[in-house]
Amino acid sequence: MGISGLQSIMEDKNIDFSLFYSSGPVPNPNVVYFSGYKGTGILVVPRKRKPFLIAPKMEFERAKKSMVKNVSSMEKKRFFDSVRETIAKSGIKAKNIGIDKSSFTLNAYSNFKKQFKKIKAKDIAVDCLKLREIKTGEEIKLLKKSCRYADKILQNLIKNFKGFRKESEAAAFLEYETKKKGLELSFSPIVASGSNGSMPHHEPSGQKIKKGFCVIDFGVKHKNYCSDITRTIYVGKPSKPEKEIYSKLLAIQNDAINQAGLNKKCSELYDFAVKSLGKYSKNFTHGLGHGVGVEIHEMPNLTLNSKDKIRDNMVFTIEPGVYFPGKLGIRIEDTVLFRGKPIALTKTSKDLLII
Amino acid sequence: MGISGLQSIMEDKNIDFSLFYSSGPVPNPNVVYFSGYKGTGILVVPRKRKPFLIAPKMEFERAKKSMVKNVSSMEKKRFFDSVRETIAKSGIKAKNIGIDKSSFTLNAYSNFKKQFKKIKAKDIAVDCLKLREIKTGEEIKLLKKSCRYADKILQNLIKNFKGFRKESEAAAFLEYETKKKGLELSFSPIVASGSNGSMPHHEPSGQKIKKGFCVIDFGVKHKNYCSDITRTIYVGKPSKPEKEIYSKLLAIQNDAINQAGLNKKCSELYDFAVKSLGKYSKNFTHGLGHGVGVEIHEMPNLTLNSKDKIRDNMVFTIEPGVYFPGKLGIRIEDTVLFRGKPIALTKTSKDLLII
Repeated sequence: MGISGLQSIMEDKNIDFSLFYSSGPVPNPNVVYFSGYKGTGILVVPRKRKPFLIAPKMEFERAKKSMVKNVSSMEKKRFFDSVRETIAKSGIKAKNIGIDKSSFTLNAYSNFKKQFKKIKAKDIAVDCLKLREIKTGEEIKLLKKSCRYADKILQNLIKNFKGFRKESEAAAFLEYETKKKGLELSFSPIVASGSNGSMPHHEPSGQKIKKGFCVIDFGVKHKNYCSDITRTIYVGKPSKPEKEIYSKLLAIQNDAINQAGLNKKCSELYDFAVKSLGKYSKNFTHGLGHGVGVEIHEMPNLTLNSKDKIRDNMVFTIEPGVYFPGKLGIRIEDTVLFRGKPIALTKTSKDLLII
Repeated sequence: MGISGLQSIMEDKNIDFSLFYSSGPVPNPNVVYFSGYKGTGILVVPRKRKPFLIAPKMEFERAKKSMVKNVSSMEKKRFFDSVRETIAKSGIKAKNIGIDKSSFTLNAYSNFKKQFKKIKAKDIAVDCLKLREIKTGEEIKLLKKSCRYADKILQNLIKNFKGFRKESEAAAFLEYETKKKGLELSFSPIVASGSNGSMPHHEPSGQKIKKGFCVIDFGVKHKNYCSDITRTIYVGKPSKPEKEIYSKLLAIQNDAINQAGLNKKCSELYDFAVKSLGKYSKNFTHGLGHGVGVEIHEMPNLTLNSKDKIRDNMVFTIEPGVYFPGKLGIRIEDTVLFRGKPIALTKTSKDLLII
């Protein structure tokens, strides 16, 4: 795993060094995973030597606090130039270079090629995702703690929910509690009441919280590791059919978690949820889940066409939902660790909470 | 400006249609600028027709709320496929296509090429930045309002500053006030006390607020438009040399704002700040400023090698700073509109506030 896992892939693929470019505003997740550094810069991982990091002058101090010991500073325009010089000085071959073609932009690549004219760039995007897909013991500890924080903050929100008038106030509370603890958000929290709930990625508005189902989707980052949980509560008095559909979705969510077994195809888990939804399957408009790590969405993908299989030490979400445009939405989501069996890391009660 | 500005560039460059791909997690700023849509998807702008948007099913409702009227939904894997079909159906030529090579990744491009084998992709990254660099009246209104919000929230923080024990609590307050108002953050707020201030991009920690200078860098997004302001306050009792260096930096910041004149080279403004800093110029480790719009960092660049010039209706920051590693940092920043003359849009007092 980590750097040594990457180096062994590089061995197999005959890659001389791998290069990851974080050009901002969002840090390159591979740079975060391999080095812990979150600023702008380039991380170089040679096949047989220690990695080095090149950061702009203004980030130099911050870069030195990363897991990489060999850090130099350089102006951004000369990043690739500096990589070439350092590589040449160390006598490292520069024939086959591994890059992540899913994050490398066309313009960055053209700058890179100016310094490395004769190289062959091999795509290691999927290799890195595959490496990150299986978590180490240390990562699992961080993910568990991240989920505990998310549970705690979410429960605190629910306890105080009556005091919020607007979706944006409830979302602001989630963020405040997150930041106060020195944590980061995994993503901008979703608080989607009433008909807004039918947009899975609704942005909390300044509108009053509407009666009916209210979808709350939230997660924090603890030391770079994400958590992800969704609970749907009810504001007002649910009708019998509303209670029934909630119960149905909850049963499917629990069943889907329990269906996760070693080497099970992720597409089968997705199919299971779709089939269980019966006439509501057309109201389920997204995947069943996704891996969680330094990124909120990573491998495995629990979707229709996924080729992924469940393996030991994967961490992923199970989050079926149903959406009725202009009317309502319900989603229930846990972050789940698979280790011999599925273990939900998020533990907030899933009974329909009526407020 | 906007779509019509882009179409006139496409006319000049003989581009049949432009294509912008927002693959997340951060929305493509050009998609936000041209359509207001912030989810995953593809925006296509034909040279002579109205734009259309392709979004995943789960984002369909949200996409329909954007400025683009023609919206269809498609699974992500078939986005480019769907663009090809729509283009073919409309009888639009597909020979020269404009793309933003600064945001298009190598892998996205290879998927795109599978559908458009015979096209010539022209880079319109800089054209879009140049278009976005000059703000319309409507954009200026939004930017002004964004700055007013930032001022208000920052002043509220300063008023309550004594009540915060940790940097992370102060940062959380800024976020909470932002979200409560239904606004977004421009970037994760920086609260960097004591020696942490020497890292321009310090992440607020759970540590107690240290005595000495405390850099607070903050901005909100109001209807997608950013603001950016930094104030450095003092916790405790500043020494005479500390007061002197603060006054020196403040004078330079004010002078640099006033040096902004029509057609002035941005690199000259940067040089002015560096020269004025004298012996401290080596402690100034970043650019003097950057444009502000739908992105927090856009054109013009106020840096050493910038080719940009100040024009009417540009909005940019002026933010000199000095950093002494392991000791302290000071930065003072305003968002400035140039319209005949420089007009600071952020108005919070810059007198050294001692807390």
